[in-house]
Amino acid sequence: MTQPTICWSNGSIKIIDQTKLPNKFQYLICRDVKTLWLAIRRLSVRGAPALGVAAGFGVLLGCKDFLGNDRPKFQQHVKKVCDYIATSRPTAVNLFYVLAEMKKVVDENPLATVKDLKALLEKKAFAFYEEDRRVCRKIGDFGQALIHSGDKVMTVCNAGALATVDYGTALGVMYSAKRKGKVFEVYSCETRPLLQGARLTTWELLRDKIKTTLICDNMAATLMKQGKVDAVFAGADRIAANGDTANKIGTYNLAVLAKHHGIPFYIAAPKSTFDLKIRSGKDIPIEQRRAEEVRGFYGKATAPKNVGVYNPAFDVTDHQLITAIITEYGIIRSPSAKNIKKALR
Amino acid sequence: MTQPTICWSNGSIKIIDQTKLPNKFQYLICRDVKTLWLAIRRLSVRGAPALGVAAGFGVLLGCKDFLGNDRPKFQQHVKKVCDYIATSRPTAVNLFYVLAEMKKVVDENPLATVKDLKALLEKKAFAFYEEDRRVCRKIGDFGQALIHSGDKVMTVCNAGALATVDYGTALGVMYSAKRKGKVFEVYSCETRPLLQGARLTTWELLRDKIKTTLICDNMAATLMKQGKVDAVFAGADRIAANGDTANKIGTYNLAVLAKHHGIPFYIAAPKSTFDLKIRSGKDIPIEQRRAEEVRGFYGKATAPKNVGVYNPAFDVTDHQLITAIITEYGIIRSPSAKNIKKALR
Repeated sequence: MTQPTICWSNGSIKIIDQTKLPNKFQYLICRDVKTLWLAIRRLSVRGAPALGVAAGFGVLLGCKDFLGNDRPKFQQHVKKVCDYIATSRPTAVNLFYVLAEMKKVVDENPLATVKDLKALLEKKAFAFYEEDRRVCRKIGDFGQALIHSGDKVMTVCNAGALATVDYGTALGVMYSAKRKGKVFEVYSCETRPLLQGARLTTWELLRDKIKTTLICDNMAATLMKQGKVDAVFAGADRIAANGDTANKIGTYNLAVLAKHHGIPFYIAAPKSTFDLKIRSGKDIPIEQRRAEEVRGFYGKATAPKNVGVYNPAFDVTDHQLITAIITEYGIIRSPSAKNIKKALR
Repeated sequence: MTQPTICWSNGSIKIIDQTKLPNKFQYLICRDVKTLWLAIRRLSVRGAPALGVAAGFGVLLGCKDFLGNDRPKFQQHVKKVCDYIATSRPTAVNLFYVLAEMKKVVDENPLATVKDLKALLEKKAFAFYEEDRRVCRKIGDFGQALIHSGDKVMTVCNAGALATVDYGTALGVMYSAKRKGKVFEVYSCETRPLLQGARLTTWELLRDKIKTTLICDNMAATLMKQGKVDAVFAGADRIAANGDTANKIGTYNLAVLAKHHGIPFYIAAPKSTFDLKIRSGKDIPIEQRRAEEVRGFYGKATAPKNVGVYNPAFDVTDHQLITAIITEYGIIRSPSAKNIKKALR
């Protein structure tokens, strides 16, 4: 994990452009909030934790050109920037969490000057960056106990270094297991329509020299039936108070399959991905994306133009299907409102 | 269903080239067995029933240039042609069934001349063609009773006109329901890696003016959870004596999901798709296809070149997960060795 997925560099946000991987490794420099907003919308940067960090740096980007010392105006400006960034994508809660925390910096320091507030915001944004690095390693430390040498584990989408600053949640667990000397294999579901599993997860795991096999999403069931999957690890975009978990479309599919085949199903996510104000998964807003993502592929039509499309970016896995949630506070087994409250306090 | 998917035309086999759909409607003319073999291998023609018909016409193609009246030589020649066609694809049993029947024509007419045998083979090949048309409509007649107005049904891959001569099995059931005046909707799973659902099924259903929504394979679970799927209909490539069913990869996935959500799961297939010599699905050979189908898309790489790939063309659904198998003999509920034997006799 040499290069961070996202960082602050010379007054800009520097991100690895994930729409280009695995064919090209290329940075995208965001010098203004609009460019960042578009990068988030098109998934040049994605993954709930990375979006949280992006939101923090995004506020810095939106404030750096604010001139003058008018505090009320600055406060309004910060609110406007936050509200704008919040419209980029609706499901990952980390984005909203960080934006709320950034606004708090201004609200809770009524005596600070604009200059002071800018410094405090910068400190806060960098704190989220550092926090993500620390927290992912903690998740890895706890979670690696769930992987044993000889295991074959399955994952979906990308919950790795590319979904965080530089380590990952579900893949962080695998990196930590490897650093403990465990030898295991990974099945990566390609994750249609945008193929984050094929493009990003396999690229990351091979970079770390972890044996990886790519499958289409519809092949998971037959592997499980053959006894070739010992555990499933996925990330999360938002976890309700009762443990219901929104994650990339296809995650719920895997959870049902894992249940049917008696395979443990794990979610790995930081505390910042929990939305304790939401009682259950029913209340999590699910982003619907463009039909073209499903009807075509790299600009080539793969279906009739006039066919209807259903393209939700996420699904919700009921907490009853989740064996445990791995957090920086430890492993929450049989997640429920009670167990989660106890663990995260 | 105006144009047949496959037919015999001026001493050649004329097929709709399904690798070109939906972007281009184009015929492929096979003037020799090698061309047909390649067309089968690359899926220009596919679908278990259509492959059966292709095998019959393929034998005609292989025999038309046999000169002379040497009966033993002709018998050997027919065997060679059949053995060659049999190497094209391993899973769909209809191919092997028809080839065995074609060989029988020669074996069981020891007194016939080469000329007579050629005429008998032609009659037999055309009988398979006509039989497919008749049988698909029978399956449709029986199966349509399982679709009700207002239903939303789901299907995978293409078990339609394009998988048979001109009507289909699973989609034939839908065509028959529509002809009965029933109004319903279809969710078509795109069916990675080769997208027969996106490319062929949506094209067919829209041609017949049936409301169709395309989804990625990993979206089926979330639709079922929302109560948006009333039944699943799939075709079959080979059915063992106990009802275990090999069909396009992803079918077993849907069967497990349907079970979890209490949704009926139906297989539609002719008697010729049953392989009663095989006790259970464990003995069905599963074709493994090229890694490039999963690692790329229309020639564009979507994953690192060095990542391993698992690419089975089919999976096996246990008979316990199948609510009923719809055949030209009627609907076999709770398929089992006993029920199947009774129904097909």
